Amino acid sequence: MWDSNREGFEAFHAMFYPRAVAVVGASTHRGKVGNFVLRSALASHVEKIYPVHAGGAREILGVKAYPSIGDIPDDHVDLFLFAIPHEHILSSFEAAVVKGCRGAVIYTAGFREAGQEGLEKQRRLRSMADEAGVKIIGPNTMGFYRVDSAMNATFMPVLSDFFQEKGRITVVSQSGGVAGFAAIRFVEDRVPMGTLVCLGNRANVEFADMLDFCAHDKETSVVALFIEGLDDVRRFYESAARCAAQKPVVVLGAGYSAAGQKVARSHTGSMARSEAIYDGVFRQAGLIQVRTVEELVDTAKILDISPRPQGNRVGVITHTAGPAVLASDVLSHKGLVLAELSKKTQKALVARKVLAPFTPPENPVDLTTFGYLDRRLYGDVLELLGEDPGVDAVLAICISALGDPYVAPFPMEAFGRKARQIGKPAVFVWGAPSCASEEFLAWKKAGVAAYATAERAAAALANLWAASRRGREVQKAVKEKPLPESLHRFVQDLRSLGPRLCGETETKELLQRAGLPTARTVVAATEEEAVRAAESMGYPVVLKIVSPDIVHKSDVGGVQLGLNDEDGLRRAFRAMMEQVRRAVPEARILGTAVQPMVPEGLEVIVGGFRDPQAGPVVMFGLGGIWVEAFNDVVFRLAPVSVDEARRMIEEIRGKKVLEGLRGRPSANKEALAHLIVTIGQLMDQLPIQEIDGNPVMVHGNTYTIVDARMSVF
Amino acid sequence: MWDSNREGFEAFHAMFYPRAVAVVGASTHRGKVGNFVLRSALASHVEKIYPVHAGGAREILGVKAYPSIGDIPDDHVDLFLFAIPHEHILSSFEAAVVKGCRGAVIYTAGFREAGQEGLEKQRRLRSMADEAGVKIIGPNTMGFYRVDSAMNATFMPVLSDFFQEKGRITVVSQSGGVAGFAAIRFVEDRVPMGTLVCLGNRANVEFADMLDFCAHDKETSVVALFIEGLDDVRRFYESAARCAAQKPVVVLGAGYSAAGQKVARSHTGSMARSEAIYDGVFRQAGLIQVRTVEELVDTAKILDISPRPQGNRVGVITHTAGPAVLASDVLSHKGLVLAELSKKTQKALVARKVLAPFTPPENPVDLTTFGYLDRRLYGDVLELLGEDPGVDAVLAICISALGDPYVAPFPMEAFGRKARQIGKPAVFVWGAPSCASEEFLAWKKAGVAAYATAERAAAALANLWAASRRGREVQKAVKEKPLPESLHRFVQDLRSLGPRLCGETETKELLQRAGLPTARTVVAATEEEAVRAAESMGYPVVLKIVSPDIVHKSDVGGVQLGLNDEDGLRRAFRAMMEQVRRAVPEARILGTAVQPMVPEGLEVIVGGFRDPQAGPVVMFGLGGIWVEAFNDVVFRLAPVSVDEARRMIEEIRGKKVLEGLRGRPSANKEALAHLIVTIGQLMDQLPIQEIDGNPVMVHGNTYTIVDARMSVF
Repeated sequence: MWDSNREGFEAFHAMFYPRAVAVVGASTHRGKVGNFVLRSALASHVEKIYPVHAGGAREILGVKAYPSIGDIPDDHVDLFLFAIPHEHILSSFEAAVVKGCRGAVIYTAGFREAGQEGLEKQRRLRSMADEAGVKIIGPNTMGFYRVDSAMNATFMPVLSDFFQEKGRITVVSQSGGVAGFAAIRFVEDRVPMGTLVCLGNRANVEFADMLDFCAHDKETSVVALFIEGLDDVRRFYESAARCAAQKPVVVLGAGYSAAGQKVARSHTGSMARSEAIYDGVFRQAGLIQVRTVEELVDTAKILDISPRPQGNRVGVITHTAGPAVLASDVLSHKGLVLAELSKKTQKALVARKVLAPFTPPENPVDLTTFGYLDRRLYGDVLELLGEDPGVDAVLAICISALGDPYVAPFPMEAFGRKARQIGKPAVFVWGAPSCASEEFLAWKKAGVAAYATAERAAAALANLWAASRRGREVQKAVKEKPLPESLHRFVQDLRSLGPRLCGETETKELLQRAGLPTARTVVAATEEEAVRAAESMGYPVVLKIVSPDIVHKSDVGGVQLGLNDEDGLRRAFRAMMEQVRRAVPEARILGTAVQPMVPEGLEVIVGGFRDPQAGPVVMFGLGGIWVEAFNDVVFRLAPVSVDEARRMIEEIRGKKVLEGLRGRPSANKEALAHLIVTIGQLMDQLPIQEIDGNPVMVHGNTYTIVDARMSVF
Repeated sequence: MWDSNREGFEAFHAMFYPRAVAVVGASTHRGKVGNFVLRSALASHVEKIYPVHAGGAREILGVKAYPSIGDIPDDHVDLFLFAIPHEHILSSFEAAVVKGCRGAVIYTAGFREAGQEGLEKQRRLRSMADEAGVKIIGPNTMGFYRVDSAMNATFMPVLSDFFQEKGRITVVSQSGGVAGFAAIRFVEDRVPMGTLVCLGNRANVEFADMLDFCAHDKETSVVALFIEGLDDVRRFYESAARCAAQKPVVVLGAGYSAAGQKVARSHTGSMARSEAIYDGVFRQAGLIQVRTVEELVDTAKILDISPRPQGNRVGVITHTAGPAVLASDVLSHKGLVLAELSKKTQKALVARKVLAPFTPPENPVDLTTFGYLDRRLYGDVLELLGEDPGVDAVLAICISALGDPYVAPFPMEAFGRKARQIGKPAVFVWGAPSCASEEFLAWKKAGVAAYATAERAAAALANLWAASRRGREVQKAVKEKPLPESLHRFVQDLRSLGPRLCGETETKELLQRAGLPTARTVVAATEEEAVRAAESMGYPVVLKIVSPDIVHKSDVGGVQLGLNDEDGLRRAFRAMMEQVRRAVPEARILGTAVQPMVPEGLEVIVGGFRDPQAGPVVMFGLGGIWVEAFNDVVFRLAPVSVDEARRMIEEIRGKKVLEGLRGRPSANKEALAHLIVTIGQLMDQLPIQEIDGNPVMVHGNTYTIVDARMSVF
């Protein structure tokens, strides 16, 4: 599968490990980007650096400069860094290709984000690059930094000072600013970083490309993404799912609010989609979602160094209960629980005298001030929790001595060693300011993920658990279940006259042919036909107007519920015809639809649509007016597996109603999962633009699609 | 009003500014709490320090020591610090009172949190202290630290090193550990702190006492609370509302999850209540709620130094859009919006040439890399936003030069000066690690609230806006509206035989007498009576069984809806009698209740109950099975004002359904507010233990209480 991307992998490799680098627009002027970029390049480990200066400088920052790209005496310059005005980019790029360019960084703005003209320029750039097999980071980017090769291709030379120790976390960010803030978090928390890539306006390097690279990159153990909006959601999904099957991928999505979207659009030129759809895609691909840059780095850090927990039961060691309460709230909110200690552990806690006389041997294990003063107790308790089969992970809390010479230092190395021995993840809440950062450095050396607050440590541990759970649920490729030929033919017939909106009857017929239970609907042109139809299905029935010109039937008197007998039906038929004709005289009326009255039940909705960026999407949620209030719907790319459909149902916030509240029977979730899977297949294999089953009435073990509609293209 | 508390204020004053301090249990041993406490005392500015050492040491840490409290040659020792085993506390406390003790700190554990015996000991301690007019911090506490007097009464002497600059933020925390983590945040972020008080097990100093003190304390500008659970919610509410009317009060509540509650209870001995009730009380008192210790300190900091915004429109200045997207998402989520810049501002941005040629003069004002390189541009834009009447606050984002000597330093002082001139709040997102903490120090000196991430700055600004809005809505004292004598008499009659559960008929009669529209209910002992009742109200009707022994009527066939005529009613009556007698042979059956069938509508619920800690509470929410799924209810202490009832309605997450979805009429919110206010009055003035109107059926402009029940005590 990967082989087809081999070329892409090699292009990235050439970019990250270049033999020679050209800095086009290198400048002696301190305030110019070309000056910063050249200084970054000089801080890198490359054999050759060629500054290009159109003004004719012979030497810049001590390096021989060239008046044009053509003058560079080297035909194997892997990497070109462009810090020149946008109007010169295209011609310069052409010249670079001649010099062997495999990768390029374009810092300059004025492309896709700058109106129609910029967009056109970017398109031309892209096709030139694709043709030449060159990967372009940018335009409008801060560039990239690869610690392993010390290749600093950003306009921030200081990054080379900050990041020297090799890490294995790769950060891919749309925004250079957010990448900068993430980098600062790495520095602050003493987390080694591996690679930082800012995609900017993405001429031909997308998140998907970077994910394909990361999946196979030996220097990447964890991927952290910052996404403001995707152009091709489906390609992203496929690459992300493939990468996440190899190594954890954490994602911070932004631009979800109207305000955020406006900002995101205007600077990257890409439209951020609804949070719910992105949420669905991220889940489906097996990514770990976070809410802040801080949480992004915190989570990447623990994923990088900790073993995965086998379950969700956390043992807590502390000398002070308040922070344990804060941590417990966060853990609990994210689906983890406080472990129940085994009798054996409890006895051992008492026998080893690690607790004060009045402290019960419970979880959290509260060492009180004795633990603050004698920090070796933490290791003792860690060992006991390690042996307890009811404990899957440990969260420990301690306040630093903060320089008090009377408090013995924490035996960090010994604690870290024990943590490795027990083989369970152990995170530390270390009460110290970053100005005591040697302490955080010591925790890092001890191999323990330490955080400055209880809330952050608990969130990171919870995300570790989510990653380990997702790992076990690895998305199996959805089995292709070709739909029967008859369904294809049926939809082909519907669209024989071109794209159109289909009515209830046609949509339900499709759903019925696909094996889904729908409320039967018979079209009756006359009163007599309606009566015959009702008799064939049994009273009570519902009568609805059928007209291609009427969308909101009930607004014009075109719906009558609960008709109990022939008499009622006849009266309703006549009244409806009269009322609708009066309300919409110009409407073509094809007759009425008769269907059995479906008893009240729990309303859900199911549907699908074709998104310009995501392709076919399937949706499920609670129905009725409540759903409009709570907007409790979830999305996935179609098709979905049965497992994925089950997860969709579990994600519904109000899913309790499916589980039988107030003595109502619980819904048949397997049947609903089958419904979702089927809608996903229809969306995937048929030319349907949009389809909706709303409401779907659930009655305990069964359900009925009461109303439905779709459009074909 | 305050005068009654004058004595309390003075006792705290004596504690925070003591002339003489005794350290009982002072120790030479480095590992003893008594050693830490003595070192803290020695770091304080007090005239006299008396170590007390039962072992007979003559001198400890260079200070003359005494074998017992009685031996101290001073009868005006304001403050006693007890670091002795719990079994000696009571007798020592008695001796301290003789020596003029006004305030005491008891570090020792083993009281309230340690079972029945400990609880009893704490009760005795409390009554001794109350009698003597002494305020006790603790037991089981880290103590307090007052920067203004440099009085360090904690067992962390290092606090005296960290906090020397006087601040005006008072932190009151149940937990010493959380206080420690908060203190570390202050150090980390260079925020000066004023007073830190750890309440521990609260012998006789509660949050309410500290809030009463803070309301009048000149050294307090902002109060920050960490609460795990309250004993007397109503007293807390009253003090908090009084204090919040004077100065902002920020609160971090914890122990809401089942796991967190368990931890909180076991260490402070107090039961944390449902998050929803606390949330209601905090809102009602006008407090600003936060979610993490970091946000607590971040919010206190901005409240301490920033002017209040006059509206919710934020202008953003940045050189990089990504972090602006993150900030916009947070602002938007919390009800703030990106300001629309005036034409004048837009023109000025262009005229002054602060923007790159292709950058539109829009909000966020994106200075791009030019702004990163020329940081004076920030001040220019700030001035323009200051003049724009459509901008209420400014959020600026810039990444530090991080030591790059080629990037000019940010003119922080000038920016701060301009911010003060424009008189609007300006927060800064400063991209630097804390190890560059001189930069944060410089921001502090410049008077600008600066934060290390966009998310934190945006959240702090949003909380500032919430505080300013709350300030304008200051809770007016609820006007006492005495209920008519007849209602009192009615309830008195109901409880004449003692506390009991009242049925639907009695409850509805009370509600009707209180002027609330209820579905009429007539009790009919016989079939004939039922028919007469139905005729008097008109069909369709509902029939329900009436029995003091049956709570869940529908489970035993005791409810029949939609009876359309006499025939149906008679059949239903007979069937019901038979079915109920068969299902519950031992039940006393008083007859049936007949009521008109209320058409389906939007279901809401209203209710009240008497909470052991909070007293009368009123509740409102959406009804039906959906509420059980979403638990969308809000609480307040009763009585509530009309304004407060309106706010309750606005807090409902699914309030859209009240606003008329899918063409349904919108609910009459004023009528619902009146309903809530009335239930609050009933709860406040009558001996009702619990009352519920469920469902209340809303039909556009009107509503009907369909079913109701209550218990009296």
